[in-house]
Amino acid sequence: MDRDEPLLLTPGPLATSPETKAAMQRDWGSRDTHFIALNARVRERLVDLAGGQGSHVCVPIQGSGTFAIEATIGTLLPRDGKMLVLVNGAYGKRIEKICQIMGRACVTLETPEDVPNDPAALDTALNADPAITHVAVIHCETTSGILNPVAAVAEVTARHGRRLIIDAMSAFGAIALDVRQIDCDAVVASSNKCLEGVPGMGFAIIRQTALEAAAGNAHSLSLDLHAQWVSMEGNGQWRFTPPTHVLAAFDQAIAEHAAEGGVAGRGARYERNCRMLVNGMHELGFKTLLPPELQAPIIITFHSPADANFDFAVFYDHLRQRGYAIYPGKLTGAESFRIGCIGQLGDDEMLGALAAIQETLTVMGVDNRAPAQAA
Amino acid sequence: MDRDEPLLLTPGPLATSPETKAAMQRDWGSRDTHFIALNARVRERLVDLAGGQGSHVCVPIQGSGTFAIEATIGTLLPRDGKMLVLVNGAYGKRIEKICQIMGRACVTLETPEDVPNDPAALDTALNADPAITHVAVIHCETTSGILNPVAAVAEVTARHGRRLIIDAMSAFGAIALDVRQIDCDAVVASSNKCLEGVPGMGFAIIRQTALEAAAGNAHSLSLDLHAQWVSMEGNGQWRFTPPTHVLAAFDQAIAEHAAEGGVAGRGARYERNCRMLVNGMHELGFKTLLPPELQAPIIITFHSPADANFDFAVFYDHLRQRGYAIYPGKLTGAESFRIGCIGQLGDDEMLGALAAIQETLTVMGVDNRAPAQAA
Repeated sequence: MDRDEPLLLTPGPLATSPETKAAMQRDWGSRDTHFIALNARVRERLVDLAGGQGSHVCVPIQGSGTFAIEATIGTLLPRDGKMLVLVNGAYGKRIEKICQIMGRACVTLETPEDVPNDPAALDTALNADPAITHVAVIHCETTSGILNPVAAVAEVTARHGRRLIIDAMSAFGAIALDVRQIDCDAVVASSNKCLEGVPGMGFAIIRQTALEAAAGNAHSLSLDLHAQWVSMEGNGQWRFTPPTHVLAAFDQAIAEHAAEGGVAGRGARYERNCRMLVNGMHELGFKTLLPPELQAPIIITFHSPADANFDFAVFYDHLRQRGYAIYPGKLTGAESFRIGCIGQLGDDEMLGALAAIQETLTVMGVDNRAPAQAA
Repeated sequence: MDRDEPLLLTPGPLATSPETKAAMQRDWGSRDTHFIALNARVRERLVDLAGGQGSHVCVPIQGSGTFAIEATIGTLLPRDGKMLVLVNGAYGKRIEKICQIMGRACVTLETPEDVPNDPAALDTALNADPAITHVAVIHCETTSGILNPVAAVAEVTARHGRRLIIDAMSAFGAIALDVRQIDCDAVVASSNKCLEGVPGMGFAIIRQTALEAAAGNAHSLSLDLHAQWVSMEGNGQWRFTPPTHVLAAFDQAIAEHAAEGGVAGRGARYERNCRMLVNGMHELGFKTLLPPELQAPIIITFHSPADANFDFAVFYDHLRQRGYAIYPGKLTGAESFRIGCIGQLGDDEMLGALAAIQETLTVMGVDNRAPAQAA
């Protein structure tokens, strides 16, 4: 491997296949019939992946996942609506901030970063405040890697007749989420997570009746998913120049996802990666933030060792020189780092990363890998 | 050439070089030091291209050019500010719509699609309405291909102490625009026009003092260029996942732009393409919308022939089969079509396109190429 191109053990952008990157070796006219057909195929496959045939439609949007989240909320939450966000990390907090900047009413229901959302507390909150029209939940909160109970949250939200928006950014395509079982108005994700495309676009799978009712809600021309949908249904084109190469790569990546066995196949590989990584790190003496039953097989948070010889920047650089890029921590309370197990990674890459970590710890002289809290 | 990949004679996405596309054949970690260095290099070169060293900074943003325009206006126009847009086509109209959706005051000063903006009328309008804080102008209005008098507009705007935002989307990199001569707060463009990158990001070259004063103006989290700038100055990173492959391609495309002789070299090639195309089409009997002195060497609008055998969809399909993708017209008043002369195009491609057009007209039996108005 070219050491200047480290393997990405990150939550995305991630390692993509050579074929996915090769799909970017041509130019596409954004209004050309061949590109229109490619775009239609991508949209249809994404609806299928969410089980949304006949009820939901796919609306893609330029930009990062946050652009897609902001666009979905700006489009679906009426200007006089009120959002409740279930927060246990930075991505829940971000939705609150999006609402604040848009000037829409928003409350949060927080649990600590290592505690899942609480459906019973949601039930109480919805009982107490009939003004709340929408609930937002993060499927896998990348801050910690925790899996939130979206099915229970959806059940409570639906029982109260409120609308649910699921930020499935880092889970979609690897953890099952079928809108026929999980009642929601929108599932939002992006090209460069578990579907293993390159970054540059996001998408929302939206209940068609909810989208039809959303004309004029949006706070932004660019981020108006109703307008984007109406226009795309009309002529098959994006309203504004799409990231054509990113879309072509995404089309290829989705085909590879299907060839791997869809959500079940992809999820099984990531589960195996996660298990191998967690077991190997445990053997090296590291502690994970989360117990196995709360850990999504996407990204794993490890406590930083209390050992005085441990320094994340040095650790990162050593691993990078050995060909592996890991991810800094994002917890508010404790020193930590994260290692992703999504993307074009399997047994060899996980074993290689573990070997590089072991070597690095030896070079750095980090003998005690237990965290400060447990030391 | 693979006939399934037509040469793009469009205003972008356009034909990019093999080397630019090859730069997308690796994955980048968006928080990795090598990517941070690449991003810094791109930003610095873009400031240099606009002559903004020491006065202006470059803030890139995910999405299409419209995203960059909306982000720039949302960030720089205070919530109690007032915009005057010089309109002679769809892109001027779009800025008005952006302001309306954001709920910010906006007036327009319109001229017909084949008439440049009127600096004298702007002078009168600014005299009459001291509430106007900002003026927006489109350098090359892609609707028609007309070149607007940005220098005169900038002079009038500065004389009245108002702030200027230039939408240089389809001109930047091929038509000189130096902020040391043309007084403005922002120049906005995107990766996939005259700089010949792939689509997926835009950027604004913004006067630093104006940006510093813009905290809290934005209507959107994703499209807040002040926050994007502050964060990027802090750690070199984009706030939200950047389109890493698009940026790597842009870095290569900018290097090729420099190797071609920068704005002067690129502009000279496009001028030659434009002249060859217009002369050839004149010989075939077509009429251009614009006289040569108003025509930017970017995209040329031709009147559709009045001949009953002419049908744009059929014309398009025939040319596409011959390997050339052209562009539909966008005029409000008259039937027209457009042919771009930007991207990786030179003499051979222009001559090839003209030959394909001649063949197609023969096959279609379009003998009279004069427009309805002149017929």
